[in-house]
This record gives sequence, structure tokens and C-alpha cells, in this order.
Amino acid sequence: MTDEARGFCLWFTGLSGAGKSTIAGIVASQLRERGRRVEVLDGDEVREHLSRGLGFSKEDRDTNIRRIGFVASLLARNGVVAITAAISPYRAVRDEVRGWMDDFVEVFVDTPIDLCEERDVKGLYARARAGDVPAFTGVSDPYEPPLQPEVTVRTEGRDPADSAGDVVAYLDRAGLLG
Amino acid sequence: MTDEARGFCLWFTGLSGAGKSTIAGIVASQLRERGRRVEVLDGDEVREHLSRGLGFSKEDRDTNIRRIGFVASLLARNGVVAITAAISPYRAVRDEVRGWMDDFVEVFVDTPIDLCEERDVKGLYARARAGDVPAFTGVSDPYEPPLQPEVTVRTEGRDPADSAGDVVAYLDRAGLLG
Repeated sequence: MTDEARGFCLWFTGLSGAGKSTIAGIVASQLRERGRRVEVLDGDEVREHLSRGLGFSKEDRDTNIRRIGFVASLLARNGVVAITAAISPYRAVRDEVRGWMDDFVEVFVDTPIDLCEERDVKGLYARARAGDVPAFTGVSDPYEPPLQPEVTVRTEGRDPADSAGDVVAYLDRAGLLG
Repeated sequence: MTDEARGFCLWFTGLSGAGKSTIAGIVASQLRERGRRVEVLDGDEVREHLSRGLGFSKEDRDTNIRRIGFVASLLARNGVVAITAAISPYRAVRDEVRGWMDDFVEVFVDTPIDLCEERDVKGLYARARAGDVPAFTGVSDPYEPPLQPEVTVRTEGRDPADSAGDVVAYLDRAGLLG
């Protein structure tokens, strides 16, 4: 691995519980094994460090996404694979962030909401249905799927490792790992 | 240059107009010439992207510094030389950020306030003296110099290139460029 390595941003988007972080983690491991420097910017971690005090209004969500995008762009232009795994529900701000980078790969983790809700890893859907979580994406706040994502992974009935494999296969085809 | 390159954080601190950004820019150029990946996190730019809405109370300043430190730590652990050039007036939060990284080099740009005020590049001292800028470091807000900075550069009567040379000489001695 040389410092000539080309950085890029791998931007996962999808509902809470869709599988973004799980798939991102597998992809990250595989790219590290291939000698790449990889940083995963998880939605919750970034909120803690960069966006404490922001809420879940559209404006605050957009600000949070712009901050994640700013950090991802700094990493990407320094040869790092910056992987983000935030819900990032709004299309316009995702497209804005895309414009900041030379190489932006949007991965739509397309999991039906019923399945996300059935998994409900963090118990958030139950709380949202009970009215305890305001502006919850997919329940009481919109999710705008990408119109032309570089990769779409449909996770229903599939192993996360297979979804991760689809992403890495795309990166290979696109010449981003070369 | 290989990806084995060791990242670190080069943290400039000093009054407004002390010469932090100028010296940081010269150091950045020299390190890039030596094949390193370098990112300069300028105070004003970072405020725009990560801390819009924050003011200049101690709490808000500390939050801003923690955000710069978080981003610097992500870059440093990915082999990048992360150079920060924010006033960062408070000692405690600088030391907190230091604790987040393996290699943290604090550079105190020690310029007498009279000289900073005489230069007054951004016209801020004049405005602060007129009472137009609240909580201005060195005028109406404290600056706490580092007690044990890795490098102190006294800029009075010296060329910025000489100060930059002192910094690079330290990095060489410390084995950070090896």
C-alpha cells in the first residue's frame, strides 16, 4: 500500500435498523485487509462529537449531515476511505455533500420498514410508535431514498456479508481500490 | 512515501495576529514537499463548517476546540499531519485534546500582544478596543499560555520562515518525520 492510495467517500443511507452500520463495518474490515486506511463515521458517534445540542428538525439534521460530509471530505482528500453510516434522510443535502468530493459512492441500504421495525435493535421504533421519539424517520418524519445511488443493497433475506460483498464488488468495478 | 507514514497533530496556539496561520502554512508546505499528507484546520474555516451557531463564551469556545481536536485525531490516526491554527486560549481543553492522541505537538506562537495589535491584520483589535467585539482574547478574555509546549516560537523581529524552521527542526528531532 502506498500513499498514492485514492481516498473516497462511501456514504450509506437508509432507515434506522436497515443494516447500515453492520454492512459498513464488514466493508471497512475488508478494505483494511486490502491495505486501505478506513475511517467509519457512525451517525451516533458523530452527533456526540460534532453536533451535540442539535436536534432532529430538518434544519438540524441537515447541519449534522453537512458536518459529517465536511469531515468525510477532509479524510477522502487525504487518501482515506471515509465511510459514513448515518440515516441521512434528506436527498438534497446528500446531493450537496456529494458535490464536495471527487469520489462519492452512495449506498442505499434498502430494507423495508416492517423489517427494520421487527428488528428494532435500539428499541426506537417502539418508542416512536408510542410517541416518545419525535420526528422519527419513517414513522413521523420522511425518508427520501436516493434516485440514482451507485449501489443499492436489498437486505431482506440476505446475509449482511453478501450485501457488503456487493459494495466491495462495485468499488472494484469502479476502479476505486486499484 | 508509504502509507506507513505516522500521523500526528501539530497544534498551534497563540493570540489573534500572533502569526499562527502564516507559520502553519509554511510548515504545511515544507512537510508536503517531504511527501507527507497534510491538512490545515484553520480556526475560521472550522468554525464555519463545524461550529456555526457557537459563540465566544468559554463553553462555546471549548466545544469548538473539542470539535477541531476530534477531527484532528481522526486525521492523525490515518497517517495525516493535522495542523490546527486556532487561538485555543484555554489550557485545560488543549490538554484534554492532547490526551486523545498518541502524538500531539503543541506550538506556542509567543508574540507580544502589542505587536499583534500593531499588525491587527483583521482589524479585530481596533474593534475589540472600541467594545465592538465581546470576549476578545487578550483584550477582554483570557489567554492561557501553555506551560510545557513542545515548541515555543518567539516571532518578534523574526521572519515567519525562521519560526517555521524551528517547528520542522523539532519534528525532525522528535522522529515524527522519519
